[in-house]
Amino acid sequence: MSQRTIGVTEVALRDAHQSLMATRMALEDMVEACEDIDQTGYWSVECWGGATYDACIRFLNEDPWERLRTFRKLMPNSKLQMLLRGQNLLGYRHYEDMVVEKFVEKSAENGMDVFRVFDALNDPRNMARAMAAVASTGKHAQGTICYTISPLHTVDGYIKLAGQLLDMGAQSLALKDMAALLQPQPAYDIVRGIKETYGDGVQVNVHCHATTGVTLVSLMKAIEAGADVVDTAISSMSLGPGHNPTESLVAMLEGTPYTTNLDHDRLIRIRDHFAKIRPKYAAFESATLVDTDIFTSQIPGGMLSNMESQLKAQGAGDRIREVMEEVPLVKADSGHPPLVTPSSQIVGTQAVFNVLMGKYKVMTGEFADLMLGYYGECIGPRNPEVVAIAQAQAKKEPITCRPADLLPPEWDKLVADAQALPGNDGTPEDVLTYAMFPGVAPGFFATRPDGPKNVGKTPDQVEAEKTSAKDVAGAVKGPIKYKVTLGGREHSVTVERA
Amino acid sequence: MSQRTIGVTEVALRDAHQSLMATRMALEDMVEACEDIDQTGYWSVECWGGATYDACIRFLNEDPWERLRTFRKLMPNSKLQMLLRGQNLLGYRHYEDMVVEKFVEKSAENGMDVFRVFDALNDPRNMARAMAAVASTGKHAQGTICYTISPLHTVDGYIKLAGQLLDMGAQSLALKDMAALLQPQPAYDIVRGIKETYGDGVQVNVHCHATTGVTLVSLMKAIEAGADVVDTAISSMSLGPGHNPTESLVAMLEGTPYTTNLDHDRLIRIRDHFAKIRPKYAAFESATLVDTDIFTSQIPGGMLSNMESQLKAQGAGDRIREVMEEVPLVKADSGHPPLVTPSSQIVGTQAVFNVLMGKYKVMTGEFADLMLGYYGECIGPRNPEVVAIAQAQAKKEPITCRPADLLPPEWDKLVADAQALPGNDGTPEDVLTYAMFPGVAPGFFATRPDGPKNVGKTPDQVEAEKTSAKDVAGAVKGPIKYKVTLGGREHSVTVERA
Repeated sequence: MSQRTIGVTEVALRDAHQSLMATRMALEDMVEACEDIDQTGYWSVECWGGATYDACIRFLNEDPWERLRTFRKLMPNSKLQMLLRGQNLLGYRHYEDMVVEKFVEKSAENGMDVFRVFDALNDPRNMARAMAAVASTGKHAQGTICYTISPLHTVDGYIKLAGQLLDMGAQSLALKDMAALLQPQPAYDIVRGIKETYGDGVQVNVHCHATTGVTLVSLMKAIEAGADVVDTAISSMSLGPGHNPTESLVAMLEGTPYTTNLDHDRLIRIRDHFAKIRPKYAAFESATLVDTDIFTSQIPGGMLSNMESQLKAQGAGDRIREVMEEVPLVKADSGHPPLVTPSSQIVGTQAVFNVLMGKYKVMTGEFADLMLGYYGECIGPRNPEVVAIAQAQAKKEPITCRPADLLPPEWDKLVADAQALPGNDGTPEDVLTYAMFPGVAPGFFATRPDGPKNVGKTPDQVEAEKTSAKDVAGAVKGPIKYKVTLGGREHSVTVERA
Repeated sequence: MSQRTIGVTEVALRDAHQSLMATRMALEDMVEACEDIDQTGYWSVECWGGATYDACIRFLNEDPWERLRTFRKLMPNSKLQMLLRGQNLLGYRHYEDMVVEKFVEKSAENGMDVFRVFDALNDPRNMARAMAAVASTGKHAQGTICYTISPLHTVDGYIKLAGQLLDMGAQSLALKDMAALLQPQPAYDIVRGIKETYGDGVQVNVHCHATTGVTLVSLMKAIEAGADVVDTAISSMSLGPGHNPTESLVAMLEGTPYTTNLDHDRLIRIRDHFAKIRPKYAAFESATLVDTDIFTSQIPGGMLSNMESQLKAQGAGDRIREVMEEVPLVKADSGHPPLVTPSSQIVGTQAVFNVLMGKYKVMTGEFADLMLGYYGECIGPRNPEVVAIAQAQAKKEPITCRPADLLPPEWDKLVADAQALPGNDGTPEDVLTYAMFPGVAPGFFATRPDGPKNVGKTPDQVEAEKTSAKDVAGAVKGPIKYKVTLGGREHSVTVERA
């Protein structure tokens, strides 16, 4: 039987730890696995972008560009892949085109090969410039469809969007299911539709999270429909809010007309490496194993916990049900955006405001911008009454053009501002760090000479916890202060495990 | 689109807690969920048999018959289902036919509807009497194929075994994948083969564990091939060494030509109930999330940990690799039995003995019996040289007949012996308890009046642990006594959280 080889993108170095452990994994906990990853036979290795850049400078005192260069050196045979939020780059606003071009140019120069470009609203205009920039570096530009469910989202609509991305020069397409909403039948229908409409030669990559427990089946159906590459994470970095296990994908395809051709012994070594590392970051993990609520609530887990903490902070923790009912209404008013960073935060926070303060009595600046077109176009029309409220509150006109078209050139000012910061090294890379994270960059530049820090536990601590858990349940790890009364006199005693 | 309705067997009340928490769940932690389970629309509710009977009397001081009667009362609309080890009933040896008949008769009388009858070696002769007994009570007799992988096991072989079970009067067939070895393609091929060979009217149930992360896909393929009923566990009692989540199955089928027709609101209530209960039994859970090693090692996880503790007890913990290489050889010598209770223990222990004391230098009595045919026939021939060693060591002749044919009538003696025990209530049910667990029953009869005990934590303990974990990690819950030397003088200090 002749088998079709399915490519695999390994996400352990980026999305897996972003989803499982709040993006906290330090580079030093990855380097040992790189040679094996490089030799396994993956189609690509996702290792940069998304929230990793932010986490590097905010939590790890690590230069993200140095991380990228290290990956490039350690994985010379692999295509390195990143996730790029289109015109937002890795930050949280739109950037003027020259900044986008500089970022892509420097990323390519430092070693990036495959750029998965997406926009939270699926507005192709927000992806166009980044994709063109990738093309001009000669690297691989992947256009992305963010998958969501709404009364307006249809298989045909996704197929049409695929065509727009191809017209924009996408060398491949990613079907990105960040909320584990992609069920087997639509997975099949969308991939099949793309292949039938635009030809079998169009490369389709499928990215699913595992949260709902159903998406390995969706990958199977996508493969049967012709998908070329799928995203998975090595088993010791998989499941829950993360991804399907790479080894399970391999096992799934055995005996079928498909195969992965991954190196089995390398997979075991990668697995064993991360099985050792993962417990170091246990404090950052959530307890979610499987959660199918999203199929009815349509609210991603991370968004829900965000809204819960906002409510609690206002002493209104008991009103989460009302907020959950408000979310679909706000989503509909804003034209049914997919709920992914930043739209999930924008819609969620406005739903909280509506419940606490009355419907659209107070609008966040971000929600007003969303209603006025400053994030781009959604699939559906926006509610004109709410647009009018936004206009009045924000004192801004609605727009219909590409949001970045309104931005004046900003590169030279960013260079000047960045270079005025102590510790700035004068490179365009540092300008980009400052451009995307103006609040965090100054502190990072100042502390960078101290070198990376690891926020995980040390192997000794992990071992000690295991032992002490088995050992004397509840013994002090400390230091902890106690009041100890001895012979009628009270003492203050600090206790710590010897 | 007309959809085919797929039946679902919910395993939360039996196999799920057997697999996840060493069968320790007390009846009182299940009763609250029963009304919802009864109203959800399951094809059947697995709730008895397997290891639950043993665990009830060994750990929970609970009468398993009372448990069954309680389920019958609380779930009047449901088909109750049990797992029955054929001629072994729920014990660990072969019983004479009249004991088998009594057991089935009493189980039916106390409320059992569906009997899933299996034999560890897939020897139909070991299932025949139990299945005939079920038929004569008018209840549902399900014949079982234990799925394994070996050089001798083929799709055609499984289809042939299905035919033997149907000839023996099976009203349905179960494809039982206790080690999560069933990959999507063979799942499809076996179910399709059975349907094509014996007709679409033959009911096929598919039971998979989730350990390897791949078997929800196998259920999908089995359904596409015509499977009628699949086994799942409510999500809060799922995954790891357990089963695929019921809600994920429901989501998987949406939009396909198949549906489950389960009541969504009931599922949520069942889930929430067990989400509350599961943490009480955390001490019994293993850390395994996903493990695909078995595809190469062919050693189920539980068997591996058994062998490891045997080796450690002999100070030879470092020899596990040798034992893992020995297992397939011992398995081949004994004719390739599926590795499931009790064959997994028998083969595993002999592999340990071979490594520690030399190849077949010392044979366990059970392994000698396996080699001499006292457990029945395997798919392959046994190695004649090893049979000769078994014969010499055990001083017994090999047999070819059905093992139970050699057993003299034993019911009357069991009645007399059981009734001599203090606390015995004189019922045939108590005789059966004694028959299956002669070592445990006397103690259980004596302590039964004390009533069931719950070995899980109390909700207060679970809450306290959550709080203290969030609070000061590692603070003493105490009280714990310390010796504290202070200024050269030793003090005895009791410390407890203020």
